[in-house]
Amino acid sequence: MNKGYFIVLEGPDGSGKSSVSDIVCEKLTEKGYEVVHTREPGGIEIAEEIRNIILDPKNTSMDAKTEALLYAASRRQHLVEKVVPAKSQGKIVICERFVYSSLAYQGYGRGLGFDEILKINDFAIGSDYPDMTIYLDINEEVGLKRIESRTFKDRLDKESLSFHHLVNEGYREVLRRFKDTKVVDASKSIDCVVDDVLALIIDLIND
Amino acid sequence: MNKGYFIVLEGPDGSGKSSVSDIVCEKLTEKGYEVVHTREPGGIEIAEEIRNIILDPKNTSMDAKTEALLYAASRRQHLVEKVVPAKSQGKIVICERFVYSSLAYQGYGRGLGFDEILKINDFAIGSDYPDMTIYLDINEEVGLKRIESRTFKDRLDKESLSFHHLVNEGYREVLRRFKDTKVVDASKSIDCVVDDVLALIIDLIND
Repeated sequence: MNKGYFIVLEGPDGSGKSSVSDIVCEKLTEKGYEVVHTREPGGIEIAEEIRNIILDPKNTSMDAKTEALLYAASRRQHLVEKVVPAKSQGKIVICERFVYSSLAYQGYGRGLGFDEILKINDFAIGSDYPDMTIYLDINEEVGLKRIESRTFKDRLDKESLSFHHLVNEGYREVLRRFKDTKVVDASKSIDCVVDDVLALIIDLIND
Repeated sequence: MNKGYFIVLEGPDGSGKSSVSDIVCEKLTEKGYEVVHTREPGGIEIAEEIRNIILDPKNTSMDAKTEALLYAASRRQHLVEKVVPAKSQGKIVICERFVYSSLAYQGYGRGLGFDEILKINDFAIGSDYPDMTIYLDINEEVGLKRIESRTFKDRLDKESLSFHHLVNEGYREVLRRFKDTKVVDASKSIDCVVDDVLALIIDLIND
C-alpha cells in the first residue's frame, strides 16, 4: 500500500485556495494517486453541528475563546473521522485551511495570542500535524480585489477591511514563526500556482 | 458594594452536591447575601447548544478530545456570561461542578491525562478560577448506593460501574494534586454537611 499524506493549503481570503486545490486534486488523480479533497468541517456531522453554533447569527454574545475552542473541537473531529483514516489508507489528503487559519484569525485577528491558540490546537491535533503546509502568498491589495470581484462590495465595510488587514498581518507572523512552511507566490497565473503546488507535493511523495 | 465570590462544589455522583448547595444557598440568602446558584451550562443559550451536541445519543462517534474541547467551550461561555458578571456585582456564585469534574471524567476516566485537560481549561478559564473549591468526600460504595436508590438499578451495568470506579480514583488524584481544596466529609447527615460547607464559605467571606 502507498504511504498516505496530509497536506494543507493555507492563505488569506482571495489567495485562491479553493480553485488551486480543485485543479491540484484533479491532476493528482490523473497521475493515479488516491486523493481526498477536504476543508473543515468537511461533511463530518458532529463538526458540522459545531460549525452551526459558531456561525449562527443569533449567537452574538459568543466569547472569542468559546469560538476558538469550538473551532478546535470541530478540527479534532474532522481530523479523526476523515483525515487520519484516509491517510492511513494510503491516500493523499488535501485540506484547505488548518491551524494557521486559527492562528491568523483567532490568535492575531481576535487578539487571543499565538501561544494560547497553539495550546488548544496541540491538544486537538496531537501527533496528527500535516506532513506539509503550503502557503498561497498574495499581496493584501490583490487578495482584496479578488474578494471584491466575487462578493457585494458593501460587504467589505470599514470593520471587515481592518480585520482583513489584521488577519494578513497574522499570516505574516505565522510565516516568521513556522519556517518549514512552503510558500508559493499566488499572484502568478493559476496555471503557474498549480504547477508550483503540484511540484511541492510530488517532491514530498518522492522524498 | 460587597466583594463577590466564585465557589465551586465538587464530588462524584451521589455525593450530594445538589441537595447540599440548595440548602446552602437558601441559608446564605437568609443571612442577607445575594446568591447565584448555578451549574454548567446554567441556562446560557450557547452553552446549552454545545451541551446538546455532547449529549446527543446519535453522536456515538464523538472523539474523547472533541468532547473535552466542547466541555471547555461550554464552561467558558457559562463563565463569561453568568459567573463573572454576577461575581463582579458582588454576588456569591455557587457552582456545582467545574474543572475537577473534567479532570476526573475526561482526564482520568477517559484517559486523556490531567495535564492535557488542564491545558485547554487554563485557556477556557484564564484568570477566573474559583475563589474556593469544596469537595464533598464520599466513600465509593456509599455514593453508589445513593445513586442506586434514585435510578433504575439496571442503569448501573458493569461498564458504568467500572467507569464510576475510575472517576472516583480520578477525584482522589485531583485531591492529591490540588492541596488547597476544602474537603468535607459527605457521609455525615445532610445537616452536618451543610453546616461544614457554610462554615467554610463564611470563613472565606470574613477573611
